[in-house]
Amino acid sequence: MKYPSGVSITKTPKQKELINYKNRGMNLEHDLNLTNDYYREINRAVIYKKPTPIKISKVDYSKNKITEAFFASPSTTDYNGIYRKQYIDFEAKETTHVKSFPLANIHKHQLLHMKKIMEHGGICFLIVRFSRKGETFLLLAKDLFQWLEENDNSTIPYDFFIQKAYQISDGYQPRLDYLKIIDQIYGGAK
Amino acid sequence: MKYPSGVSITKTPKQKELINYKNRGMNLEHDLNLTNDYYREINRAVIYKKPTPIKISKVDYSKNKITEAFFASPSTTDYNGIYRKQYIDFEAKETTHVKSFPLANIHKHQLLHMKKIMEHGGICFLIVRFSRKGETFLLLAKDLFQWLEENDNSTIPYDFFIQKAYQISDGYQPRLDYLKIIDQIYGGAK
Repeated sequence: MKYPSGVSITKTPKQKELINYKNRGMNLEHDLNLTNDYYREINRAVIYKKPTPIKISKVDYSKNKITEAFFASPSTTDYNGIYRKQYIDFEAKETTHVKSFPLANIHKHQLLHMKKIMEHGGICFLIVRFSRKGETFLLLAKDLFQWLEENDNSTIPYDFFIQKAYQISDGYQPRLDYLKIIDQIYGGAK
Repeated sequence: MKYPSGVSITKTPKQKELINYKNRGMNLEHDLNLTNDYYREINRAVIYKKPTPIKISKVDYSKNKITEAFFASPSTTDYNGIYRKQYIDFEAKETTHVKSFPLANIHKHQLLHMKKIMEHGGICFLIVRFSRKGETFLLLAKDLFQWLEENDNSTIPYDFFIQKAYQISDGYQPRLDYLKIIDQIYGGAK
């Protein structure tokens, strides 16, 4: 946005912090929520983000209000649902790294869960956004686990995504048409 | 449990309250969680209860603690996962009523969700426990919706469960073998 010359817009440190906090890691989630809303609206798929797991320790029952709770670590992935009669399950992560994606971003429990889903015949993948590049990839769980088997490294290089993953293009509606990639891979009619 | 004669065990009102609160509507959920844990342990299915949806309004970031939050109404059912490559989705409710199950127990959003899952080819059902009778039933979504179409009533009589639903027997492990019923209906190998 252009401002008339002479007008300088500065943010207080507090404002900056708030803005950074709000956007930190939330863009991908926001885009996926919009995408899933749209998929449900046009009845293409029924896929939801699961609620954030929380450990509730104090409740004020008179006001039906939780007064103390803590964030709990998730034992499953964040997203699941149904598409073309198939079980879909995925995790989504954003990284500010440019050359690699650190797997530390994903809990061990989540990796184990993804492996199980794969074994049970579900469609399972990881969506990774390299936020500085503005690029979003879909990496199938099978390719993720093959990499993990072959490499003794907890960081996946960006080049591996270029080689093995599928780039998801940004759009207006749906914002991130990841099911188009699933159609390409598993051969669904458009 | 038998106590030696002359010994009387009484609970203070506070204890009674706590016990009632803890058990209120929690038995079925507890039994299903144990059942799903067991299914995952023996690698039969990967089915989880979703976290309770909560609207967080205040967080103390210095302690990573939620200091104010409210229970939100769920837009989906509580349980989903994968079994024999199929998407499984269900809601579970306990009632103290003896002659009927009031549908007010289920949110409209949840019913709409169940309808969508059915249309998308998922295995969708309701598990209802009549706690006073100690009986637990699995009612397929298609039978639930047929009843709703044919009846202008928000209460489903117990007799309908006897006619159309499948009784789930109580066991030690798994506690409530509802997948056995799914095998019976959809014809899975034992």
